[in-house]
Amino acid sequence: MSGDVNPFESLQEQIDDAAEYIDVGTDVLERLKRPERVLETNLTVELDDGSLEVFRAYRSQFNGDRGPYKGGVRYHPGVTRDEVKALSGWMVYKCAVVDIPYGGGKGGIEIDPIDYSDAELERITRSFATELRPLVGADRDIPAPDVNTGQREMNWIKDTYETLEGTTEPGVVTGKAIDSGGSCGRVEATGRSTMLTAREAFDYLGEDPAGATVAVQGYGNAGSVAAKFIESELGADVVAVSDSSGAVYHPDGLDTRAVKQYKNETGAVTGYDGATEELTNEELLTMDVDLLVPAALENAIDADLARDVGAD
Amino acid sequence: MSGDVNPFESLQEQIDDAAEYIDVGTDVLERLKRPERVLETNLTVELDDGSLEVFRAYRSQFNGDRGPYKGGVRYHPGVTRDEVKALSGWMVYKCAVVDIPYGGGKGGIEIDPIDYSDAELERITRSFATELRPLVGADRDIPAPDVNTGQREMNWIKDTYETLEGTTEPGVVTGKAIDSGGSCGRVEATGRSTMLTAREAFDYLGEDPAGATVAVQGYGNAGSVAAKFIESELGADVVAVSDSSGAVYHPDGLDTRAVKQYKNETGAVTGYDGATEELTNEELLTMDVDLLVPAALENAIDADLARDVGAD
Amino acid sequence: MSGDVNPFESLQEQIDDAAEYIDVGTDVLERLKRPERVLETNLTVELDDGSLEVFRAYRSQFNGDRGPYKGGVRYHPGVTRDEVKALSGWMVYKCAVVDIPYGGGKGGIEIDPIDYSDAELERITRSFATELRPLVGADRDIPAPDVNTGQREMNWIKDTYETLEGTTEPGVVTGKAIDSGGSCGRVEATGRSTMLTAREAFDYLGEDPAGATVAVQGYGNAGSVAAKFIESELGADVVAVSDSSGAVYHPDGLDTRAVKQYKNETGAVTGYDGATEELTNEELLTMDVDLLVPAALENAIDADLARDVGAD
Amino acid sequence: MSGDVNPFESLQEQIDDAAEYIDVGTDVLERLKRPERVLETNLTVELDDGSLEVFRAYRSQFNGDRGPYKGGVRYHPGVTRDEVKALSGWMVYKCAVVDIPYGGGKGGIEIDPIDYSDAELERITRSFATELRPLVGADRDIPAPDVNTGQREMNWIKDTYETLEGTTEPGVVTGKAIDSGGSCGRVEATGRSTMLTAREAFDYLGEDPAGATVAVQGYGNAGSVAAKFIESELGADVVAVSDSSGAVYHPDGLDTRAVKQYKNETGAVTGYDGATEELTNEELLTMDVDLLVPAALENAIDADLARDVGAD
Amino acid sequence: MSGDVNPFESLQEQIDDAAEYIDVGTDVLERLKRPERVLETNLTVELDDGSLEVFRAYRSQFNGDRGPYKGGVRYHPGVTRDEVKALSGWMVYKCAVVDIPYGGGKGGIEIDPIDYSDAELERITRSFATELRPLVGADRDIPAPDVNTGQREMNWIKDTYETLEGTTEPGVVTGKAIDSGGSCGRVEATGRSTMLTAREAFDYLGEDPAGATVAVQGYGNAGSVAAKFIESELGADVVAVSDSSGAVYHPDGLDTRAVKQYKNETGAVTGYDGATEELTNEELLTMDVDLLVPAALENAIDADLARDVGAD
Amino acid sequence: MSGDVNPFESLQEQIDDAAEYIDVGTDVLERLKRPERVLETNLTVELDDGSLEVFRAYRSQFNGDRGPYKGGVRYHPGVTRDEVKALSGWMVYKCAVVDIPYGGGKGGIEIDPIDYSDAELERITRSFATELRPLVGADRDIPAPDVNTGQREMNWIKDTYETLEGTTEPGVVTGKAIDSGGSCGRVEATGRSTMLTAREAFDYLGEDPAGATVAVQGYGNAGSVAAKFIESELGADVVAVSDSSGAVYHPDGLDTRAVKQYKNETGAVTGYDGATEELTNEELLTMDVDLLVPAALENAIDADLARDVGAD
Repeated sequence: MSGDVNPFESLQEQIDDAAEYIDVGTDVLERLKRPERVLETNLTVELDDGSLEVFRAYRSQFNGDRGPYKGGVRYHPGVTRDEVKALSGWMVYKCAVVDIPYGGGKGGIEIDPIDYSDAELERITRSFATELRPLVGADRDIPAPDVNTGQREMNWIKDTYETLEGTTEPGVVTGKAIDSGGSCGRVEATGRSTMLTAREAFDYLGEDPAGATVAVQGYGNAGSVAAKFIESELGADVVAVSDSSGAVYHPDGLDTRAVKQYKNETGAVTGYDGATEELTNEELLTMDVDLLVPAALENAIDADLARDVGAD
Repeated sequence: MSGDVNPFESLQEQIDDAAEYIDVGTDVLERLKRPERVLETNLTVELDDGSLEVFRAYRSQFNGDRGPYKGGVRYHPGVTRDEVKALSGWMVYKCAVVDIPYGGGKGGIEIDPIDYSDAELERITRSFATELRPLVGADRDIPAPDVNTGQREMNWIKDTYETLEGTTEPGVVTGKAIDSGGSCGRVEATGRSTMLTAREAFDYLGEDPAGATVAVQGYGNAGSVAAKFIESELGADVVAVSDSSGAVYHPDGLDTRAVKQYKNETGAVTGYDGATEELTNEELLTMDVDLLVPAALENAIDADLARDVGAD
Repeated sequence: MSGDVNPFESLQEQIDDAAEYIDVGTDVLERLKRPERVLETNLTVELDDGSLEVFRAYRSQFNGDRGPYKGGVRYHPGVTRDEVKALSGWMVYKCAVVDIPYGGGKGGIEIDPIDYSDAELERITRSFATELRPLVGADRDIPAPDVNTGQREMNWIKDTYETLEGTTEPGVVTGKAIDSGGSCGRVEATGRSTMLTAREAFDYLGEDPAGATVAVQGYGNAGSVAAKFIESELGADVVAVSDSSGAVYHPDGLDTRAVKQYKNETGAVTGYDGATEELTNEELLTMDVDLLVPAALENAIDADLARDVGAD
Repeated sequence: MSGDVNPFESLQEQIDDAAEYIDVGTDVLERLKRPERVLETNLTVELDDGSLEVFRAYRSQFNGDRGPYKGGVRYHPGVTRDEVKALSGWMVYKCAVVDIPYGGGKGGIEIDPIDYSDAELERITRSFATELRPLVGADRDIPAPDVNTGQREMNWIKDTYETLEGTTEPGVVTGKAIDSGGSCGRVEATGRSTMLTAREAFDYLGEDPAGATVAVQGYGNAGSVAAKFIESELGADVVAVSDSSGAVYHPDGLDTRAVKQYKNETGAVTGYDGATEELTNEELLTMDVDLLVPAALENAIDADLARDVGAD
Repeated sequence: MSGDVNPFESLQEQIDDAAEYIDVGTDVLERLKRPERVLETNLTVELDDGSLEVFRAYRSQFNGDRGPYKGGVRYHPGVTRDEVKALSGWMVYKCAVVDIPYGGGKGGIEIDPIDYSDAELERITRSFATELRPLVGADRDIPAPDVNTGQREMNWIKDTYETLEGTTEPGVVTGKAIDSGGSCGRVEATGRSTMLTAREAFDYLGEDPAGATVAVQGYGNAGSVAAKFIESELGADVVAVSDSSGAVYHPDGLDTRAVKQYKNETGAVTGYDGATEELTNEELLTMDVDLLVPAALENAIDADLARDVGAD
Repeated sequence: MSGDVNPFESLQEQIDDAAEYIDVGTDVLERLKRPERVLETNLTVELDDGSLEVFRAYRSQFNGDRGPYKGGVRYHPGVTRDEVKALSGWMVYKCAVVDIPYGGGKGGIEIDPIDYSDAELERITRSFATELRPLVGADRDIPAPDVNTGQREMNWIKDTYETLEGTTEPGVVTGKAIDSGGSCGRVEATGRSTMLTAREAFDYLGEDPAGATVAVQGYGNAGSVAAKFIESELGADVVAVSDSSGAVYHPDGLDTRAVKQYKNETGAVTGYDGATEELTNEELLTMDVDLLVPAALENAIDADLARDVGAD
């Protein structure tokens, strides 16, 4: 999903780059560049037609020096060991930067969830949770929603873990349903934070977000909530949004909630009749806008593309 | 260590080959071709000079349907994930063939133990044992000695596990010291079994082992004990033995114990003065002998070489 | 204790009645009408005279979907399996109505505690706690005081549980002594809530509680505290109170604390010399008062009696 | 299944009867007449059509003074709490009589397994095993096959328990498949023991079993194996066998294996064409034979019927 | 109980003496001279009159290198920390000499059990077992009977441990009742071994035990069983036996069983009318006999007394 | 370190003294005068030169009625069992006086840490933590820094405990590094409290601390922080401070931070060139000052010395 860039090598280069600014031995650095452990598991699950299928899944625990590992679980056909390792490493730095007592972890299943029934996804998730059991827990490693997972998957993991351990431990996951102990505001948190970051960026640059033009790549939970708040809180015009089907564009700004509703109904943003034009994702990424929000998968913008990005 | 053959692909091909003789669905077969789980861990250990070094280690648990996983832990610079996966798969079939209630596992550390002090090896082993802890135990997975590991390493694993669990559980490893609950005969078991297999093979072919010529590739524990018993119990002439330094040859048979003692003192079989000639390993493998014993690492003989093997 | 009404059937009818107002399948409903599990245990305990006696005890865990089970443990000769099941079911709905993350449970021992010494009651309670051990805990099921149990019994359960688990876990019970981690205000909570409910009811009906006439059936902890607060906080006149010995009446209002002190000393409210008249419990329940507080056991008022209740 | 006799009362009367022959206090006796604990659980399981159904299940642990509880789990629509309690009590005495260090337990689900698919039965069994988990284990309570349960159900229980506990513990059940650690001879053990008992009875009475006439009520595992051995080992003529469909009769003896094969194919013994006559179960029980083997459910023969039994 | 000899110093001197015969560093020796850990606990127990009493108790775990700690628990007013430490050290060497995979432990309570009722002793023992719980277990440390403890105390410890752990683990103690999993022959094992040692000693010296004269100091379980077997199996004459009340003597040999029965009835050997003379313990120890059996507490014979011992 | 006063006897006398003011039975008192348990352990640790050394260590858990045990771990050559017992007893009363739900514990190792390298101290501490493991935990017993231990040692204990338990449990110790979950202000808490106590004392006596003269015995963490705050917050003149090297004096007050920095660099207060005079510790203790702060070890002032103390 990230062209020819290996995300794990990308992480390691970033650590090397950062290390030039601090005084750290190469031996310590070497430790910081590799995950403490990675579990690879092959889940054999019965499908609705009675046949078996094997799914490859991973959990990487990168570094736990600052506290229990913390990080999402994604379901995507492009999940690889190196991607999971890289993402778990980035979680270490994210938690450290905001100074919360957690380390970094990440997991994923190599699957396109659209191809499976809800019952099959439940069995796959519970099978994965059974594998995770000796390694996770509120005091060990705490999964969270990520690409293609949400409250439903977290509740399945929580319920499986609690049954296996014979207890009630809602802290084993974050992002669970509010009725099951989840935090209010969790669903919109990623998108809201994107808006807050954008607001600070405009402020830092001494520009006014009101009336600015914005393009949003990716219109899942993160992208659509970000778009909604950028429109409603900052008064900017979201002129283009995209998903894997392509992008839609309106020079005066799209109605971000209407696009979301349209995507909920049809499964794609393309075809939305409030747009004046349809674009490719690459066209969207290189548009001349004031703000570009990349809200799909990591490494969407590589060095080459970066040169073409038109956002100010 | 195995040329360009990937041992894991080799295992999967063998399973496919075997599957042609039984009635089994492709979905079940698919499950049998992949390990249930593989733990990859990066051990950060303090060396004697105070610096840190990171060691990559693996434990593959291939299939536990028949009982706790069972298999060795090897220390070798050529250890790879795929090798460990393949070896754990072969353990499944070994245990099943002799009908003991165990599944298959295997582990390894990517390390050349000759480069490290005893104290460093102890710390590395104990660090690995700490990682293995949630996955092993007499009822879960039982490590054993393998290439470059023996009673000493097993006792370190056992002691670490017992300290972590606060109990006495000698069954967590096999191959431990006899004083620590090890089985009598364990050290010579692999070599003795090789001799028994050779004896049965001669019997099956209706030939007399007494006076037969034998070449032994690899002169570690397995090879040297096999040579000793083939000489003493079967009366055959061990005309050539080798290790990573090369091979030594005597047309009338070598004194297998003397060669072993020489290797213990010098670290190699080459240079042994009771030999008439020194050969390469490849020459040894293709010698014209009655019995060839490959007792080094797996996949020593590939399809090409197999055509050249001269043993009857 | 509740005439010929089976409390469990009563609960199930209430669920059926409520179900008519929501859209729920009969299969889901069926699950909601039965406890998840009921433990029945026969406790054999040595009495002070050295003989053994067997006591029947129950713990019903009705529904844990919303969190750990929660509910009291009562000691009463009329305890039955169906009563415990019903009470545990009502706890589910109580916790849900006030939206706390707990499910419903309830326990009881078939015993009249007045017939046993303190030492015997301690041994009986500790024996029950040993039986409860695998099912309770701050994250599993949390007992509380109920009819004829209080801080003393909760502390015995807590201490037994902590000794068995080798830890300190005050959260295993509520209603323990304040010095042992109990909550301030817990002892008066039931009675105070009764007063608050009455206050809201008067408010809802647009009437003034000051000077209203009140009858309280049951003068244990719940009833006497309710009476005290209804008198002191609302300014109402508690004209009649009862216990199993009968009821006492004074048209201008009783001194609720004096009656309590009298009952503490004599074990009954009857005979209290500040009353003008003595009544039966049934007479009290059907008195013409502004507020009737049924604070004894459940199902005190059945359909027939309800027609005769004189309270407004 | 047992007419109007309450099996638990029946057990208690037997204990009272036995007590007359020993010196035991009534308080001790009272303890011996009641189970230590009974777990009642309502299992909510999803059926193949997606709807839920609730199944009532029990486990009674009668007495553990001599060791872990031991006893079967039956699936039958007539399972009741009192039946399970009684059966668990009889297990106490059976284990004590043969002097093995086990106490007595018994469990059951109120279900007619013929009405459910294999997948449904697996889910029901695994749900029950999850409930049993805190109470069972090789050192606590060990289920076994009983009416309508066998190796398959035991393996489901074992697998569920092992997954929940994260270990391998085949000792948690007896009667599992031999490949899963089961004992050889377990399947035929009940029937073989019946033959041995019959052999000893003939010997005790000084009669010769060869040529004796035998009627077998119940032709499940116990009855059919008993019949097979009584025919093959003792040389007796099994003239009549029955199941819930009725009985078949041949004055010269039936071919016990042929009848079994017929029942395996058709689900009933009636209709077997090697019989000369078909009878009711009651007729079979009162036939004039040398040996009557009641191999169906308990209490098949009550006091009234006992008078009519024609067997010598 | 052992004059002015400190048993722990005595043990340490013995280790120093033994060390002269082997090649061992002083640092290793230092480790071998001290217990790994000693738990001292003050048990507060309610007496039958309702008052509390505090009892000092110890458990010393001397060395566990060879396996779980193993050793008795004694009840005696003369129990001291140093005595318990010494006894636990001697257990290490006893287990090593007979080459069983156990280390050495020992425990004791400072109490004269004759001053307490059975109920009090049960409460004291159960309180001690609760303290021992985190340190003992079949795989950690295994108590056994010792001075003034036996099957009864072991069963109390076993039952307490099993209740606390929620399991059945008879291996937590040895010396329990046979019905509770104890070993046949355990009660007589110490005495029988004494006879076997004596038999071997006579054999080694080339003398005939038949008709030899024997004095036994201490007539508890060890001494009286030894006397019985020395009389019945070796045909020797037990001419004198003693206990804390003094010694009885008959030149032609005492009837060892009759003396035992007399002591069981009266609590002492003195006064036994089958004796011709009564002696002090010191006189017995210095008698002119062929064999002297010291079967009371350790250190009965010090260097001075040793010079006076008259036995050959 | 405390002359000839046995601190445990001292504690017991204090309890007896206090008991005269309350109504408590001698049996209860007896319980309050002895620790519930004391673990003595001999830690065998490998030194940097490869040799072994044995270190005696203790943990006393005096009384846990009010909650988990709580108290420091000190490293000092003068540590004795009786000192540890006494200190653990005083912790009971300290926690009770400030009414926090903790009991009292204390531990220590008989060692002068100055004689050992950091690596050796780490191994010694981790060995001690392994011994403490079954007895400590956030819900059982919580060590803290004490003489010669601090954040570093607490982090070693925490890390060892967490590794052994396979979890993250920062609550197992207090006084850990802030980055590891420690409390802000913990390092200065003892010294700050001393200042607050002094402030209240001056207030109680109606005197003004500004300009008062102060002598501080002991200039470790507690003493130097107290001095700093007494100087900066109260405006008093710290005229003399001491450590084990002796005391320094300046009639107009010392610069408390400068003395601290001097001690950090040289390891002693003596030789500080901002002083006008050097004194012995005893001279300091008996100086004529307004406030004397004894901040070294307990029992620095005995009855004799108390008569000579010159502070007001």
